[in-house]
Amino acid sequence: MSASRVHEGRHFLQIPGPTNVPDRVLGAMHQPTMDHRGPEFAALTRSILSRLPRVFQTSGPVVIFPSSGTGAWEAALANTLSAGDSVLMSETGQFSHLWRGVAERLGLQVEWIEGDWRHGADPVKIADRLSADKEKKIRAVAVVHNETSTGVASNVAGARQAMDATGHSALLLVDTISSLGSIDYRHDEWGVDVTVGGSQKGLMLPPGLGFNAVSGKALEASASAKLSRAYWDWQPILEANRQGFFPYTPATNLLYALDEALSMLLEEGLQAVFARHTRFARATRAAVDGWGLENLAAVPSEYSNSLTAVMMPEGHDADKLRGMILERFDMSLGTGLGRLKGKVFRIGHLGHFNDLMLMGTLSGVEMGLHLAGVPHQAGGASAAMRVLCE
Amino acid sequence: MSASRVHEGRHFLQIPGPTNVPDRVLGAMHQPTMDHRGPEFAALTRSILSRLPRVFQTSGPVVIFPSSGTGAWEAALANTLSAGDSVLMSETGQFSHLWRGVAERLGLQVEWIEGDWRHGADPVKIADRLSADKEKKIRAVAVVHNETSTGVASNVAGARQAMDATGHSALLLVDTISSLGSIDYRHDEWGVDVTVGGSQKGLMLPPGLGFNAVSGKALEASASAKLSRAYWDWQPILEANRQGFFPYTPATNLLYALDEALSMLLEEGLQAVFARHTRFARATRAAVDGWGLENLAAVPSEYSNSLTAVMMPEGHDADKLRGMILERFDMSLGTGLGRLKGKVFRIGHLGHFNDLMLMGTLSGVEMGLHLAGVPHQAGGASAAMRVLCE
Amino acid sequence: MSASRVHEGRHFLQIPGPTNVPDRVLGAMHQPTMDHRGPEFAALTRSILSRLPRVFQTSGPVVIFPSSGTGAWEAALANTLSAGDSVLMSETGQFSHLWRGVAERLGLQVEWIEGDWRHGADPVKIADRLSADKEKKIRAVAVVHNETSTGVASNVAGARQAMDATGHSALLLVDTISSLGSIDYRHDEWGVDVTVGGSQKGLMLPPGLGFNAVSGKALEASASAKLSRAYWDWQPILEANRQGFFPYTPATNLLYALDEALSMLLEEGLQAVFARHTRFARATRAAVDGWGLENLAAVPSEYSNSLTAVMMPEGHDADKLRGMILERFDMSLGTGLGRLKGKVFRIGHLGHFNDLMLMGTLSGVEMGLHLAGVPHQAGGASAAMRVLCE
Amino acid sequence: MSASRVHEGRHFLQIPGPTNVPDRVLGAMHQPTMDHRGPEFAALTRSILSRLPRVFQTSGPVVIFPSSGTGAWEAALANTLSAGDSVLMSETGQFSHLWRGVAERLGLQVEWIEGDWRHGADPVKIADRLSADKEKKIRAVAVVHNETSTGVASNVAGARQAMDATGHSALLLVDTISSLGSIDYRHDEWGVDVTVGGSQKGLMLPPGLGFNAVSGKALEASASAKLSRAYWDWQPILEANRQGFFPYTPATNLLYALDEALSMLLEEGLQAVFARHTRFARATRAAVDGWGLENLAAVPSEYSNSLTAVMMPEGHDADKLRGMILERFDMSLGTGLGRLKGKVFRIGHLGHFNDLMLMGTLSGVEMGLHLAGVPHQAGGASAAMRVLCE
Repeated sequence: MSASRVHEGRHFLQIPGPTNVPDRVLGAMHQPTMDHRGPEFAALTRSILSRLPRVFQTSGPVVIFPSSGTGAWEAALANTLSAGDSVLMSETGQFSHLWRGVAERLGLQVEWIEGDWRHGADPVKIADRLSADKEKKIRAVAVVHNETSTGVASNVAGARQAMDATGHSALLLVDTISSLGSIDYRHDEWGVDVTVGGSQKGLMLPPGLGFNAVSGKALEASASAKLSRAYWDWQPILEANRQGFFPYTPATNLLYALDEALSMLLEEGLQAVFARHTRFARATRAAVDGWGLENLAAVPSEYSNSLTAVMMPEGHDADKLRGMILERFDMSLGTGLGRLKGKVFRIGHLGHFNDLMLMGTLSGVEMGLHLAGVPHQAGGASAAMRVLCE
Repeated sequence: MSASRVHEGRHFLQIPGPTNVPDRVLGAMHQPTMDHRGPEFAALTRSILSRLPRVFQTSGPVVIFPSSGTGAWEAALANTLSAGDSVLMSETGQFSHLWRGVAERLGLQVEWIEGDWRHGADPVKIADRLSADKEKKIRAVAVVHNETSTGVASNVAGARQAMDATGHSALLLVDTISSLGSIDYRHDEWGVDVTVGGSQKGLMLPPGLGFNAVSGKALEASASAKLSRAYWDWQPILEANRQGFFPYTPATNLLYALDEALSMLLEEGLQAVFARHTRFARATRAAVDGWGLENLAAVPSEYSNSLTAVMMPEGHDADKLRGMILERFDMSLGTGLGRLKGKVFRIGHLGHFNDLMLMGTLSGVEMGLHLAGVPHQAGGASAAMRVLCE
Repeated sequence: MSASRVHEGRHFLQIPGPTNVPDRVLGAMHQPTMDHRGPEFAALTRSILSRLPRVFQTSGPVVIFPSSGTGAWEAALANTLSAGDSVLMSETGQFSHLWRGVAERLGLQVEWIEGDWRHGADPVKIADRLSADKEKKIRAVAVVHNETSTGVASNVAGARQAMDATGHSALLLVDTISSLGSIDYRHDEWGVDVTVGGSQKGLMLPPGLGFNAVSGKALEASASAKLSRAYWDWQPILEANRQGFFPYTPATNLLYALDEALSMLLEEGLQAVFARHTRFARATRAAVDGWGLENLAAVPSEYSNSLTAVMMPEGHDADKLRGMILERFDMSLGTGLGRLKGKVFRIGHLGHFNDLMLMGTLSGVEMGLHLAGVPHQAGGASAAMRVLCE
Repeated sequence: MSASRVHEGRHFLQIPGPTNVPDRVLGAMHQPTMDHRGPEFAALTRSILSRLPRVFQTSGPVVIFPSSGTGAWEAALANTLSAGDSVLMSETGQFSHLWRGVAERLGLQVEWIEGDWRHGADPVKIADRLSADKEKKIRAVAVVHNETSTGVASNVAGARQAMDATGHSALLLVDTISSLGSIDYRHDEWGVDVTVGGSQKGLMLPPGLGFNAVSGKALEASASAKLSRAYWDWQPILEANRQGFFPYTPATNLLYALDEALSMLLEEGLQAVFARHTRFARATRAAVDGWGLENLAAVPSEYSNSLTAVMMPEGHDADKLRGMILERFDMSLGTGLGRLKGKVFRIGHLGHFNDLMLMGTLSGVEMGLHLAGVPHQAGGASAAMRVLCE
C-alpha cells in the first residue's frame, strides 16, 4: 500500500470496530474469486445461509447485502415502511441520530424519544408513545441495541415486552452492528422483526457486508410497504438465495471470509463467545474504576460488553490523548462522536480478542494517561488482571 | 472453505467478470483492517482518489460505494432525478433490462428504445426521441457502454454528439461495468454525466465496490433531484472524501485492493491495457471465425474487446457445453442470460489476462466443442495464435 | 518485492520445477509461525509424518530436512557410507554429474557408468559392474529416477532386479526430485534403500525442504557408516520425530505448506495424479511430434511424464528462443544444462497443472517457434488437443 | 491445517524465536514461486545481497543457506577447518553444547572452557588458553554471542581484543542466531571471521534460512580447510551469487520474505531497532525485579536484550507454569533447556514486537504466576510500564 508507515509489531486496533480480523479470515478472503453462478458458489451460499441465522439466534432468513451497516439500516426501513409512516426512535447516541437521518431522508416521520447519551432506550417511554398513538401511525420502533458511540446497551427484550403490553402492532427494528457475535442477542426469542447487522465487529470480518434478519411479520409487511427500493429489496435476494445465488454479483471474497468466520464462531461456541466478551468488559470496567475515571454508561445493567466509553476529566481533550497513544503505542482508540467529541474515548474489546491483547490495550491506555498528564490513579491495568484471574 | 472441490491446476475463470484477481491484489487485501478514521486511512483514500479518475479519463470526482455494480446504477439515477422524470434507455441486452428495472422501481418513467440484443444503442434513435420530447420530460439518457450479456459495445461518443445536436439538455448516464479498465472509455471527452462502474472486471478486484464518476452538470442536477436517497447520496461522501474519509465504515480491505489495482493499471499504462484487450478480442474473434461459429455482435464496429458472445448452432444447448467444459477442463464460461439462455456462451477475455491464458481458454472451448459434438471446424485456436503472432 | 516487473495475467512457470504453487499451499504457508516445541506443532508433525510416506509408497520413515534437494543427496550418502567407499553412479545427465560431485567432495570413490544423456541408467551395465566387484568395494548404487536435465526416466525396478540377480549387497539410492508426486514411484516395492526427494516439483511446494525415505537396510547401514555428519544425521531427527518434534528449529511455514500439499495429493488420489501427468506428457510429446521436432529422450519406455526436453534444430539457440518466449509470452521454460546448453529447451508439465495450462504452455511454445524463425511445422498444439480429447 | 485449535485472538509467541512474523513478511512469502534462473530472480538476489550485509554491519559477503541455524554452525566450521583442528569453545549454555556437538561430529577437537550457564564467554579465559597453545593447534575460537538458553550476551569485542593481545591467529566464529537484527552486533568492527545467523529471530522470518557472514581471513582459510563439504561450501555459492543466482534451487519464497524483512529493518533503521530492543529488555527486567524473581543472567553488562530467562523459586516447575499460561492465556514462553529444564522460563522480547505486545506478555506472566501459585510480588507489569513511559 502506498501510504503505510513503519509498524514495529502489530497495530492495536481497539476502536469498537472494525476489529482485528483473524488470520484465518484474511486467509479465506485471499482466494481466487469464483463464478458467482456456478455450483461451487451455490455450495458456499448454502454453507453460509445454513449457519448465519444461528448468530442472530433466529430460525428465519438473513439477507446479506454488499454494503456497509448503514445500508442495512436503510434496507430495514425500505422493506417494511411506506412514505409518511411514523417510526419511533430513541436517542441513545450518535448512531441513533444517524439512523434517524436515514429514516428522514427516506421520507418517514420520526417520533423521537430524547435521551442523554448515557442511557439506553427506555421501554417505558416507548410503551407510552405507542399507547398514545391511537391512530396507529407508528409502524415501527427502532432501537440501537448496542450504541457504539456510548457503550450503552439497550434492553431489547424489555422494549418488546413493553410494546406487546400496549397491544400496538408496530414492528421492532434493532441495530446490532456492534453487538452481533459479541453480546447475547436473540432475534426470535425477543420478538425482533428486523435485526440490522454488519460484518466488521463481532463477526470479525473486514467491513463490506450488511445484514437483515427478518421475521415472518416483517416479511409480510414488506409485501405492502411502498418505499421505493431496488438494491435493498429482500424479495429477489431471498428468491435467488433458494438456489444458492444472488440477483447481482455478490461480494464473493467477503463471503469466503464470512464462511470462515462462522466456522470460527461456531467452533468456539456462541455462549463461550458471549462469556469471553463479558470477561473483557468486566476487566475493562475494573481498569476504568482503578484509574478513577468514569464510564459514560450510567447504569450497570446497560453496560456494553463490546466497548467501553471512558469520560475524560474536565479540561482534558480525549482526542489529544488518542493521538498521543497512536503515535507512541501504535494503538487506535475510538474517538468521541458527535456531541461527545473530545469528551470521551472508546475502548473496543470485541471480536478476535483475548486476555493478553486486552492487557496490552489497557496498559497502553494507562501509559497514555500518564504521559498525557491526565489526572488518574495508576493501578487500572492491575485491577483488570485481578478480574481476568478470577 | 467448506464447499471446495479438488482443483488440479488453476481454475480458468473466463466469465466476463468477476475476472481473475491478480495475486498482488489478493495480497493487498490480505492486510489488517485499519481504523477508518485515522491518518493512515486518510492517506489511503488520497492515494486512491488521486488516481482513480484517470481510469475513467475524467478530471472530476469519482464516488466509491461499498456495493455491487447494480448499486452504482441506482446511485446514478437517485442522485440526478426526481420521481416521475423520464429516462430514455436503449435495449441492448439483459443488463439494459435490469437497469430499466431499477429505474422503474425508483418511480421513474422509462422511455424504451427496443433492440435486438445484437446491436448497441443507436445514436440516431436516441436523438429522434429527444427531438420528439418537446416537453423535456426526458431528464436522462442511459446507455450500457459494453453490454455484458451480448458482447456489444455502444457508441457513447456518438450518442453524446447526437444528443447535443438536438439541443436537448438530458444527462447522459453510462454503464461501464464490463468495459472500465479494459476498453478505451473517456468520461470527460465524451461528455458523460455519470459513469457507472464496478470493481470486479477490468479493475481486477473482487466484487464489492461500485463507482460513479460525476460531471459538473450531474452534480448540479443532484442539488435539485428529489428521489429519496441516503446510502447512495453523493454529497456526504464527496464532503467526507475531502478529508480522506467516508461518512460510513468503508470496505477497507477492498480499498487496499483498489489501491493496488490502480498501481498495476497505471504501471502498465492505460493505453497498453486497452491495446492488450484489443488483441485478445481480435484473437478470440479469429477463433470463433475459425470454428465457423457466429459472434452474437452483429456489427464489427460494435464488437466488444472484453468479452465475446458466441452463438450456438441451432439445436445445441450452450449450457450443456458450458457444464461439460467446467467438469472436464475446470473452466467457467459465461452463460446466456435472459432470452439468450442456452443460445450463447460468453468468453470473458478481460482483466488480469495474457496471451497464454487466452490460448488455454480458446483451446478449452475448442476441445469442449469437439467433445460435446457441437458442429464446428477445428482450427479456431490456431487462427487465434496467428493473430497473437502478428 | 523490489525487483518485480509488470505482469499482465499469470506468469507461466513451465520449468521442470519449481512448479506452480497452488493457492491453497501458499495460503497454508501464510500463517503465523508457531512454537516448534508446543503441542500444536507436535500435531502438525504427526499429520505430516503419517501421510508423507504414502507419496513415496513406503511404510518406512521419511526424514525431512530444511534444505534444497542437493542437501538430501548429501544426506543419503553421508548416512550410509564411509570415507573411501565406492558408489556406482550412472551418467544420465547434469544432475547425475552434480550428485557425483557431492559424492566426491564427501571423499567417496565414484564408479561411473558413462551415458549419452539420452538414455536412463542401464540395469545391465549396473549388474555387470557389481558382478565385477569381487571385493565388494561398491557399497551403493545411485540412480537418478527422472533426470531433470533430459526428461529421461530410468528403470529403477529393473536396476534393483539386476542388482539382486548379482547377489551383491550394495544399497540402492534413488533421486526422485523431479518425479515424486508426479510419476509412479514405489520405494518399498522396488527395493530402494534411500529415496531422495525435494519439495518444489510434484509436491507443489516452494523449494526449501529435502527428503530421505529410508529402508531398514539403510538404517542399519547408517549405524556403521563413518562419514562425518551432523546436520544430515538421520538418527536425532527420527528420534525427535517420535515425539512430534525436530532436533533443530524446523522450517515451520514450509511444513504448513507440506501438510496442505499432502491433503491435496491424497484428495486427488495418487493414481489420479500419476494418470494426469501421463496425459500431460503424452499430449506434450504429440505436440513435439507435430512440430517435427525431436524429443531428447531416445527410448519411449524412458520418456519422462513430468518434463519433456526438446532438441533444437541445428543452428538455432534454445536460449534465444526461451528468452523471446519469456519476453513476449511471460513463460519460463527450462534451459539446457551442462553440455546441452543452447541445444534443448525443457517443458515442465508437472505439479499443480491442468489441461488448459498445458495448452497455454504448448501454444506459447508454438508461437515462440514461429516468431523466432525456428524451422517447424504448425499443428503441434492441435495434436496435443487431440490427445487431451481422447 | 489439520491440527489447529480454536484461538480467540492472536497467539502470543513469546519464545525467544521463532518470533512473530510480520504480516508484510508473510504476505511477501505468499507470492508465486519464480524461475530461479531467470532475470527477475537475479534482481531479487541482488536486492537481498546488497542489503543483508548491513544487518551484520559488514562490508563483506554473506552466504545464505536453505537450512536451520544449526546448518549455518556446521558451515562455519566446515569451511574454515580441517579434521583434527582444535576449536576453543566457551560453555555458555545449551546452544554452546549443541555447537560443540556439531564440531565433534565433524572430527574437530574441542577445547572447552567450562561455564555456569549464567555468564558469557570470558575473554580472559579465552586469551589464557590461546596463550597456552604454543603449537597453534587452536585454529578457531567459537563464541555464542547471545545464548538463547540463558539470556546471557557475551562480550564479542572483548573476546577479539583478548585474542589479538595474545598474538594468536585463531579465527573468531560467532553465533548471533538470537541477536542478529535485535542487539547491536558488528562483524567488521569487532573483527569476527564468521558470523552465524538464522532467519527466525530478529530477522522476523519463518525458520528455514541460515547465514554466514565471512571475513577475508575466513575466506582465505577456506582455501586450505580440508573438512569435506558439499552443501555447505561457500565457494560455489559466492560464485553463483555474483550473477544473482545460487548453485542449487534456493528457498525462493523465504528469499521473498527476507527481501521484505530487510526493507522493514532498514526503514526503521538499525539503531532504532537496537534501541527498541533495549527498552523491551529493560522493561522486562524491571518486571522480573518487581515480581521479586531472579534473572538467570548474573552480570548486568551481559543481560540479553532479546530474551530474559527467569529463575523459578525453588520447588516450582517452570514447565507447569508455562503449560498453564499456554492453556489459559494462549502464550508460548521458552522452556528451560538442558540442565535448566523446569528451572527457568524464557521470555522472548525480540523481533516484530512493540510496547503493548510486551505488556500483554508481561501481564500474562504475572497472571500466570498468580494462578499457578508461584511465590512472587504483584507489580511487575506496573514496573515495566514505568520503564516504558520514561
